[in-house]
Amino acid sequence: MSASFDEILEQVSQIPTKKLSVAAAQDLPVMEAVKEAYDRKIAVPILTGDEAKIREIASQIGWDLDACGIRVINEPDVEQAALAAVKLVHDGEADMYMKGLLESKTFLRSVLNKEVGLRTGKMLSHVCVFQIKGIDRLLFLTDVAFLPYPTLEDKEQIINYVVKVCNACGVQNPKVAPLAAVEVVNPKMPVTVEADQLTKWNEEGRIKGCIVDGPLSMDLAIDPEAAKHKAGAQNRRIVGDADVLLFPDIHAGNLVYKTIVRMTEFKNGCILMGTKAPAILTSRSDSKETKINSIALAAVVAHHLNGQGF
Amino acid sequence: MSASFDEILEQVSQIPTKKLSVAAAQDLPVMEAVKEAYDRKIAVPILTGDEAKIREIASQIGWDLDACGIRVINEPDVEQAALAAVKLVHDGEADMYMKGLLESKTFLRSVLNKEVGLRTGKMLSHVCVFQIKGIDRLLFLTDVAFLPYPTLEDKEQIINYVVKVCNACGVQNPKVAPLAAVEVVNPKMPVTVEADQLTKWNEEGRIKGCIVDGPLSMDLAIDPEAAKHKAGAQNRRIVGDADVLLFPDIHAGNLVYKTIVRMTEFKNGCILMGTKAPAILTSRSDSKETKINSIALAAVVAHHLNGQGF
Repeated sequence: MSASFDEILEQVSQIPTKKLSVAAAQDLPVMEAVKEAYDRKIAVPILTGDEAKIREIASQIGWDLDACGIRVINEPDVEQAALAAVKLVHDGEADMYMKGLLESKTFLRSVLNKEVGLRTGKMLSHVCVFQIKGIDRLLFLTDVAFLPYPTLEDKEQIINYVVKVCNACGVQNPKVAPLAAVEVVNPKMPVTVEADQLTKWNEEGRIKGCIVDGPLSMDLAIDPEAAKHKAGAQNRRIVGDADVLLFPDIHAGNLVYKTIVRMTEFKNGCILMGTKAPAILTSRSDSKETKINSIALAAVVAHHLNGQGF
Repeated sequence: MSASFDEILEQVSQIPTKKLSVAAAQDLPVMEAVKEAYDRKIAVPILTGDEAKIREIASQIGWDLDACGIRVINEPDVEQAALAAVKLVHDGEADMYMKGLLESKTFLRSVLNKEVGLRTGKMLSHVCVFQIKGIDRLLFLTDVAFLPYPTLEDKEQIINYVVKVCNACGVQNPKVAPLAAVEVVNPKMPVTVEADQLTKWNEEGRIKGCIVDGPLSMDLAIDPEAAKHKAGAQNRRIVGDADVLLFPDIHAGNLVYKTIVRMTEFKNGCILMGTKAPAILTSRSDSKETKINSIALAAVVAHHLNGQGF
């Protein structure tokens, strides 16, 4: 079981090196992260975009692309660069897909492209994996960045996706906590009714490979001490030991996500789920380490999916 | 300006000592907190409840109630104890009201009692004040515990309340951030439309005594570094320096609240707002320090309200 990103990086070193296709790679922070991922044997990149700029940045950071045998595909138009990059993954020439210097919506349009994209016909969702000081295991947060208001069925799908990500990280039969402000079902709070339904679907065997127990408040989900002292805790299957935090909507998810980023010591990495192969939708505010962790996460997930997609 | 609970405690020492009425005080953790608040001259309590048990706990913690001139009102029935305790505040014999060993709903029923309660005819809401390691000012979080789904008008009222709490803590013209996952208005996300309306009402002078700027994501609200690098940040009135975090609903608020409690080094104190006098709705999971901080917060707010209520 991976309790840390060090262990995910260790896992990566034990699988065949994955190929990473980068859309519009002409961006210093992206190139720095990709170079370090390459140096640490996490992934071998294929860089699409403005070749002159890519080579200029490479030389700036002391990366001899030719000596390293790094393929560069010249496509100055970002939209075309994205399509060229995503096609490499679509065609099986690369194992995962990463955003460079282009807008998120352009990147996502390439992911969803019918001819060369990574569509599976199912919805997309996002997972962010956190290692947080004081917590002895990885936490899988979803959805904190992509899907605004997931329906009950969307949440079922999100769970199916995130179970695969957990498994890829070595977490078997993860504990999934559908979160809310309270831990009792209240018809006036639809989120609690949905959490209860997801729990029932898990008990009935419709949602497999995990233990779902909700609604849960954050303390019952992640704080064993608090959970122990709460009435009714002895009847729950999650007692402060959740692996997956399933958020009611993007507002709750994103606000918690950014609270962790601003207020704690953490490492994290994030990927898109629901695609044929993992896609990395980094943000400019992500640190280099977060980008490298995201590549490593994508690599273990790509290995686990074995070309089958989510 | 109070940047810490130490400064709130310093403020308390400079105002006339407030009287704290405690409902069903026969609870060891509550008595310990109330004793320390008394020892530190934060408040003089009046204890209602099961007198024998109260005196037993007092002797257990070495508190000579008679020598200290502490009034005890014997009322073994918790509902009656709550009504007796809240009446003291209603009648002006005490300045603030605190929950002891009784259910929250019983406590709230006493707050809302038409004859002896603390109703103002306006809605109630909750504010939690946080001092968090790495953040150089107090953060006022609302509503994380009481109001499930505040309407636009409720949010306006919440802002009016919390401005008074800020002022009581020495924070003039607080910066109020109506939070969301994003910082742009999106008609598909009603929370962002409401945040925009609150901002307009502030600009038009309908919401006074503060600077409202929303919708804001958590990083734009509290992280000056992140805010500086975000496009459009130069046009905002809040750039990582928000005092008040106004949450979309109780799920987002409570999940962030408990994330902070579980994952950071913090001090906090919380009170109910919208009442004739501050009410302290502590939870069993609150630490002694949180209870004492809540009493201190209630004292400075009671002093600021000067008997006029919210």
